Amino acid sequence: MTAPRHVFYISDRTGLTAENIGEALLNQFGRIEFKRHTYPFIDTPEKARTVVEIVNRNAQENGLRPIAFVSVVNDEIREIIKKAGAFHINFFETFLGLLEKELNTEAVAAEQGHHSIGNTQRYDARMEAVNFSLNHDDGVSDKNLKEADVILMGVSRSGKTPTCLYLALQYGIRAANYPLIPDDLESTDLPRMVKPYKDKLFGLTIQPERLQAIRQERRPNSTYAKIDTCRSEIADAQNMFKRHGIPFTNTTDKSVEELAVHILQACKLKRRF
Amino acid sequence: MTAPRHVFYISDRTGLTAENIGEALLNQFGRIEFKRHTYPFIDTPEKARTVVEIVNRNAQENGLRPIAFVSVVNDEIREIIKKAGAFHINFFETFLGLLEKELNTEAVAAEQGHHSIGNTQRYDARMEAVNFSLNHDDGVSDKNLKEADVILMGVSRSGKTPTCLYLALQYGIRAANYPLIPDDLESTDLPRMVKPYKDKLFGLTIQPERLQAIRQERRPNSTYAKIDTCRSEIADAQNMFKRHGIPFTNTTDKSVEELAVHILQACKLKRRF
Repeated sequence: MTAPRHVFYISDRTGLTAENIGEALLNQFGRIEFKRHTYPFIDTPEKARTVVEIVNRNAQENGLRPIAFVSVVNDEIREIIKKAGAFHINFFETFLGLLEKELNTEAVAAEQGHHSIGNTQRYDARMEAVNFSLNHDDGVSDKNLKEADVILMGVSRSGKTPTCLYLALQYGIRAANYPLIPDDLESTDLPRMVKPYKDKLFGLTIQPERLQAIRQERRPNSTYAKIDTCRSEIADAQNMFKRHGIPFTNTTDKSVEELAVHILQACKLKRRF
Repeated sequence: MTAPRHVFYISDRTGLTAENIGEALLNQFGRIEFKRHTYPFIDTPEKARTVVEIVNRNAQENGLRPIAFVSVVNDEIREIIKKAGAFHINFFETFLGLLEKELNTEAVAAEQGHHSIGNTQRYDARMEAVNFSLNHDDGVSDKNLKEADVILMGVSRSGKTPTCLYLALQYGIRAANYPLIPDDLESTDLPRMVKPYKDKLFGLTIQPERLQAIRQERRPNSTYAKIDTCRSEIADAQNMFKRHGIPFTNTTDKSVEELAVHILQACKLKRRF
């Protein structure tokens, strides 16, 4: 077993983008152990110099050259970070020059004012969507359901709530959700509350074994958590989706991000900011 | 005014990473108008060929070479997409070769099984954190507050709820929140409910004008939405934070992502997955 390779994510913003693309790349080297360090908000030369010292000290202590994934817009700060004794992967620099050539124009840093106005609008859209989702969680209210962009339907614990909240936070989508209870599942009709909004419905299904595990965690040894209950509820729900032509997807092996993008595609929804 | 330049985000996963880094790059060319198209889940040669046709048709119709930001792990699919008549920015290819050299090993595609187990664990951590946040929203319960990773405190509408939910979804952090009501603000002591957990507290402040706008939207022309009310509540809250040494930040110009990363840093929290 060799020593882990140290990885630094350095960004003048949150570092999320650098982390995402960095992790996707490191994933391709499954046999190597990595140790991660994230330095967000490196937006002054002083902070940049401090990070350089930290990286250099790490390199010295470990004897292995660290890997630095750098996502920094500002030239001056980028130049300082470059001096760190690491193997640099520089997202901005690598592509900005290529894009300048292709677009036949010089890149200019985004204005500060512009950025903060964008944040406010984005924030408002998110707030509104999050409030909407919270107010329409678990079928608690059909008030304003006609203002929903999408209504997720599925049996209890099939993953509706986190998906709704993610759609709200990430895309500003007003996502309501409606839990299919046994009464709903016995009927061949759509539940009364959501029937008027058939075009907004999207169904979630899940593997019975996975559902059982989730329910068992919540209410151990209940009828609710029995594998037979899970199987029959899921089968009934799926039949309902098919009977009424409601698009649906299986959540079992999907992340919340993947689910959200599937739903956007299937329902032809666009982000609100 | 010139015609907009078409931009394609093509990914074998959600396309979120490609969009994030692509948008950051395009932001540097503020004067050019871009029209975006995202094609997620391009994970078969067939889908790849369809996308190539779409890109080529777009190029023909618009007379301008489109820009393609491509984030595809699979070699075969990447090779097909390369044939599209676009200006390609290929995230994986550009860096994978460099990393292979640096790490002195060949990249291998991540195993499918590994991925889905990772998803399940991640999903469980998120579910748990989201449920925790929902159960501890707006100070509704002090039950299990000792299990919180962080407790956000601030006046009504200062941005606590979306930030808590984002911390839960993105990092699996159990974030509770406590709204400072006028009664709390009149006292020099910390609110009874959160006092035992002083080390977990983080304060949110906001510009009075911005708070007024948000409250006005919610309860027009109420005392609650008056600028004087907003000013004094915010001043009292800030005094409380300072008096008790509680770290705090101003939410006004920050996105939810930025707030979340600030809080992680200030409270020395690590993602739970």
